[in-house]
Amino acid sequence: MGPIVRSPRINRRVALSGLAVVTAAAGLLPPGPARAQAAATTDPLASWNDGATKRAITDFVARVTREDGADYVKPAERVAVFDNDGTLWAEHPMYFQLAFALDRVKALAPLHPDWTDTQPFKAVLEGDMKTLAGLGDRGAIEVITATHAGMSTAEFETVVTDWLATARHPRFKRPYTDLVYQPMIELLAYLRANGFKTFIVSGGGIEFMRPWVERVYGIPPEQVVGSSIKTAFEMRDGRPVLFRLPQVDFIDDKTGKPVGINEHIGRRPIAAFGNSDGDLEMLQWTTLADGVRLGVIVHHTDAEREYAYDRATPFGRLDKALDAAVANQWTVVDVKRDWMRVFPFEAS
Amino acid sequence: MGPIVRSPRINRRVALSGLAVVTAAAGLLPPGPARAQAAATTDPLASWNDGATKRAITDFVARVTREDGADYVKPAERVAVFDNDGTLWAEHPMYFQLAFALDRVKALAPLHPDWTDTQPFKAVLEGDMKTLAGLGDRGAIEVITATHAGMSTAEFETVVTDWLATARHPRFKRPYTDLVYQPMIELLAYLRANGFKTFIVSGGGIEFMRPWVERVYGIPPEQVVGSSIKTAFEMRDGRPVLFRLPQVDFIDDKTGKPVGINEHIGRRPIAAFGNSDGDLEMLQWTTLADGVRLGVIVHHTDAEREYAYDRATPFGRLDKALDAAVANQWTVVDVKRDWMRVFPFEAS
Repeated sequence: MGPIVRSPRINRRVALSGLAVVTAAAGLLPPGPARAQAAATTDPLASWNDGATKRAITDFVARVTREDGADYVKPAERVAVFDNDGTLWAEHPMYFQLAFALDRVKALAPLHPDWTDTQPFKAVLEGDMKTLAGLGDRGAIEVITATHAGMSTAEFETVVTDWLATARHPRFKRPYTDLVYQPMIELLAYLRANGFKTFIVSGGGIEFMRPWVERVYGIPPEQVVGSSIKTAFEMRDGRPVLFRLPQVDFIDDKTGKPVGINEHIGRRPIAAFGNSDGDLEMLQWTTLADGVRLGVIVHHTDAEREYAYDRATPFGRLDKALDAAVANQWTVVDVKRDWMRVFPFEAS
Repeated sequence: MGPIVRSPRINRRVALSGLAVVTAAAGLLPPGPARAQAAATTDPLASWNDGATKRAITDFVARVTREDGADYVKPAERVAVFDNDGTLWAEHPMYFQLAFALDRVKALAPLHPDWTDTQPFKAVLEGDMKTLAGLGDRGAIEVITATHAGMSTAEFETVVTDWLATARHPRFKRPYTDLVYQPMIELLAYLRANGFKTFIVSGGGIEFMRPWVERVYGIPPEQVVGSSIKTAFEMRDGRPVLFRLPQVDFIDDKTGKPVGINEHIGRRPIAAFGNSDGDLEMLQWTTLADGVRLGVIVHHTDAEREYAYDRATPFGRLDKALDAAVANQWTVVDVKRDWMRVFPFEAS
């Protein structure tokens, strides 16, 4: 596909001050007077169109931060949790971590001559996604363990970092870390500016995310919750290493998300952001509680600027959670309607 | 035993300004001019006697925080990890969490008439610690699951909070949370004032610590790593709960400590504080790395003010780690020599 055409809706204030907003939100300006001034004179959610969705977010933040208000929440309790795939960055045509795993199979294939006629590796090497999908969870787990285990945590970090530096998204021809959603980057910064602590709670691998999320989202590694494989501590030549074992430790998806939140954060969030049925229980855990809570679902409705999908899709299936959003009064982001800009690289 | 007599060594500066130091370190003063002034005019490590131990700590902090120095570490990487039992609070005559579990068995006994002649409960109810110890890990796990599982996370938090409010330490006749080490409270605050993020990494239960560590240590729940049992997400009467299952999830001790650090923090610490062989691997993981690192072991040498123990003891056994301290140049705190005050309640 060709380059993405920017939505014709232009907010005049943003057009005038776009650069300042983007650089400030992305943490590109140093802290201090320059940045403070940019924040004071521009809309921190400049890539969000005005309307009910944006207002639901800003009203919530106003309520929980107003010190003399009935809904005030002290900063320590302002925990906001974000799914990653499809919520903070794109997830089509496949989860980016899956693209990583397939690329790793190809890179490692010379060391494993038997892979050319052993499934699921044969399917991967032949680009036969249909056969791979037909192998189900067993195939996926074999691919994951062959590409994610058998090395130290430090080695894995290097592999991930190197891949992100060279791999390109098939449609947008850009590094995968360019495929983050600009409105969500602004939202993360806006919440932090209002005393929130922002966490990722993703079905993706915790160690696949940690090498880059601080740079891209401003979220430090200790605020990342994700799926994991087991690791073992060993002394090698007098130096300690953590070795990645081919055993699943924890799947941070569906009912696993509240479990992971409790294990890692130990507080109940007051705001949760997701985009799929994998986020349903996280949204329930966050919102079905006393006090003011915010549940948000990103509904991908814009095939032109990115992708449109919901009830029937292999990645980011949004079905039960979309019904639950109505029942529970969660805020549904309509990407086409609510996001003035989708990706940071779109011209403003 | 009778009341604890304070060590005769008195630092004059501390005697004059003791109240300000204690209140500031314990977070009892509000932020602002009053507190800033107290911090500026007093020694933040006032309960540490001058000498090589204190100097090892302050020299390390000076080196990693000096911006133009070769050993500078940026604040985001200043991760300090602390064992809890025997490092931040006392652990004799038994781990305080074990005292909690034994009290819970007694409290729950009326609901379990069979416990009067079923081990390990019979031994607990009869106060027969010898038989209980003889039942080994199996007995311990039965006591833990009977007292720590079978309820929601919210219910468990209430049980822990209620116990801490009423239980008293057998020797000191005070709430267990009074048995924290004043020098370590000061050290936590001192490190945070120097841009460190402080974490607990304890073999104790993560959910046993979280209800009180923020109040007592200034460490928020999301910075606690510990042992855990499995939890399950369920909807009950339309409300989500996390239910505590009678299954061990993770043991955060020995080789588990580096694993837990990696899982929860995702950064390698630059300073680690422990007191037993259970902390050996955490100290190795922290210190056997490039760059300036600080490893500290608290050696309990003061039977008069608290307890003296090391190589042969059921709780907080310090044997291999004491030898490793010499080999690796870790700093060993000699409680009798290095701590001017042990507990906050000692008169100054």
